[in-house]
Amino acid sequence: MQHLHVELGARSYPILIGPGLLGRADLFEEYVARASVLAGGRPTNDFLLVTNTTVSPLYAERVHASLPGRRIVEVVLPDGEQHKTLANVSSIFDVLVANRYARDACVLALGGGVVGDMAGFAAACYQRGIDFVQLPTTLLAQVDSSVGGKTGVNHPGGKNLIGAFHQPRAVLADTDTLATLPVRELRAGIAEVIKCALIEDEPFFAWLEDRIEALLAREPEALGHAIRKSCEIKAGIVARDERESGDRALLNLGHTFGHAIEAVQQYRGLLHGEAVGAGLAMAATFSVRAGLMDEADAARVRALLVRAGLPIEAQDVAGAAALEAMRIDKKVQSGRMRFVLMRGIGRSFVTADYPEDALAATLETHFA
Amino acid sequence: MQHLHVELGARSYPILIGPGLLGRADLFEEYVARASVLAGGRPTNDFLLVTNTTVSPLYAERVHASLPGRRIVEVVLPDGEQHKTLANVSSIFDVLVANRYARDACVLALGGGVVGDMAGFAAACYQRGIDFVQLPTTLLAQVDSSVGGKTGVNHPGGKNLIGAFHQPRAVLADTDTLATLPVRELRAGIAEVIKCALIEDEPFFAWLEDRIEALLAREPEALGHAIRKSCEIKAGIVARDERESGDRALLNLGHTFGHAIEAVQQYRGLLHGEAVGAGLAMAATFSVRAGLMDEADAARVRALLVRAGLPIEAQDVAGAAALEAMRIDKKVQSGRMRFVLMRGIGRSFVTADYPEDALAATLETHFA
Repeated sequence: MQHLHVELGARSYPILIGPGLLGRADLFEEYVARASVLAGGRPTNDFLLVTNTTVSPLYAERVHASLPGRRIVEVVLPDGEQHKTLANVSSIFDVLVANRYARDACVLALGGGVVGDMAGFAAACYQRGIDFVQLPTTLLAQVDSSVGGKTGVNHPGGKNLIGAFHQPRAVLADTDTLATLPVRELRAGIAEVIKCALIEDEPFFAWLEDRIEALLAREPEALGHAIRKSCEIKAGIVARDERESGDRALLNLGHTFGHAIEAVQQYRGLLHGEAVGAGLAMAATFSVRAGLMDEADAARVRALLVRAGLPIEAQDVAGAAALEAMRIDKKVQSGRMRFVLMRGIGRSFVTADYPEDALAATLETHFA
Repeated sequence: MQHLHVELGARSYPILIGPGLLGRADLFEEYVARASVLAGGRPTNDFLLVTNTTVSPLYAERVHASLPGRRIVEVVLPDGEQHKTLANVSSIFDVLVANRYARDACVLALGGGVVGDMAGFAAACYQRGIDFVQLPTTLLAQVDSSVGGKTGVNHPGGKNLIGAFHQPRAVLADTDTLATLPVRELRAGIAEVIKCALIEDEPFFAWLEDRIEALLAREPEALGHAIRKSCEIKAGIVARDERESGDRALLNLGHTFGHAIEAVQQYRGLLHGEAVGAGLAMAATFSVRAGLMDEADAARVRALLVRAGLPIEAQDVAGAAALEAMRIDKKVQSGRMRFVLMRGIGRSFVTADYPEDALAATLETHFA
């Protein structure tokens, strides 16, 4: 088992990574049942287990068994990004109220990023904020969405437009759950791993070039290393800039393009991680066209994405439609778009200062 | 004009109190248009003015005139506590999204506590938090709900169960707006003023005994003093305990009983401030029966409430129903209720340690 610490002052929390964690009653006792105590609160007996129709039959029983004697009410949501809505968060509120859960109750998010985002947002707003613990069961959630405290839901007008910053009390990432993950979702998670390396860690990128097949084969040692490194990189950035006023925007590498693809496809096309994969290839092209990065580095980015089974273009999406979608994206401030670009592998930075023709060429190259 | 400062580190903000503030373009320029700049952000041209059907025709035009050249989209909500719902906050999100407002947009809450709570909650959640400014137009909002950063909505199962802590960038309390306030609402606001005195300021309570008729006659000097003192007391408590982990619970003096009355009446009976007035009389009786406070002090509390035209009992509400409503109230932790009691006027404290028969006697005395 690996143990990381996210340093956020009074909101600091541990991330545990390893096989079999969902069955470890000792860890649940220390990090879940006493999560509020570590934060200066009182121990609780009241848990709300938020999960979905796919994950519940696979893993909910392990959670129940690891918290013996506690009251655990389960909320089973429909599975899929299209269900990440305020209406579903409202249904979580209804269950919390109906069971008269008080401020000392704790929400457990068992599932992927969609479950984590909704359960975390419900915890952020119920009685103006109660504890929650992330139990991520997808690679994407283990490396990305369960770290950093972003919670929320989509709006018909855009992704993640409604939400809150609310840090979990702990994250327990059981790598055994990745055995049942569909291969498309595994690849989508690897896109976020590649993103972390591209932001600030060239040696990790080289390690991925060496071990990508081991990750796809779900070799436990390779998965454990990739998750730990990704969480370390993300946790470090979040610790520097919890509320995204500066450095944290680096984590959006590939996301401005990725979100645009998802929006135009109305969240029924590529998975989020797949769209981010394509977005990374686009950010690389943009960086080359802006004269920032060597074409040889961009070729390495594309080659790794292809080996991971990820898309590097969006030929069913019109460039003009993607541009329009980007403008409503939340990274836009006062009309000028901001992008994360690269001066090389592991050397990303945020800017609103770029040549317009480099953006146009990128849209031309990767979109319809 | 009076100027207070709420000290909350990076979330500190000014409260301005006085006549004619809504017409002061110079103050809007300094404290509203540049609110985000003071907090290290960029100036914005995008404002969302949230108000209601009663207040809009009276005061919205003054706000428009005081922010010349800016884009101000107006959301006019229905008036009344029964409309403080997640559905109405969702309609605010829809307008923000439809107008493509970005993170630098600023929400203006023009109205009473209901408008402020909903507009503030929408600002807390839109893009995970944008700026907002309170422009309270009722005495209750000027002395209480616009200070302290509590935002949120009611749930059919209880009041204020869904919400967030989100501090305004500034509060501009124009005392001229109190001229159009219905007398019942004026009295409801005075209940919160009396509460502030009872918590920790016996001399202010004595001033109220001396000047209650001047307040009811809306004498500007008396109103200005009462609002400033109340905001000072509340701001001081909030600065000590922003997230209500300790001292801030003092502000719930009278509220456990008051919320119970409102819940049993399904928010269609007493106004919030009226219910708090009755709750203050109940807290006084409770404190006397618990052997904490002299009956003479409780008599002073009741006498001032009566002179203010506030209720001191709830004879249409069954004591058993009120007790049941209190248990679901958010102040309950792990089954044991907490109350704010008094050792005397201006000497309040929070406790879960009280004689059960004192509670029973209080219910018997003040309820059906």
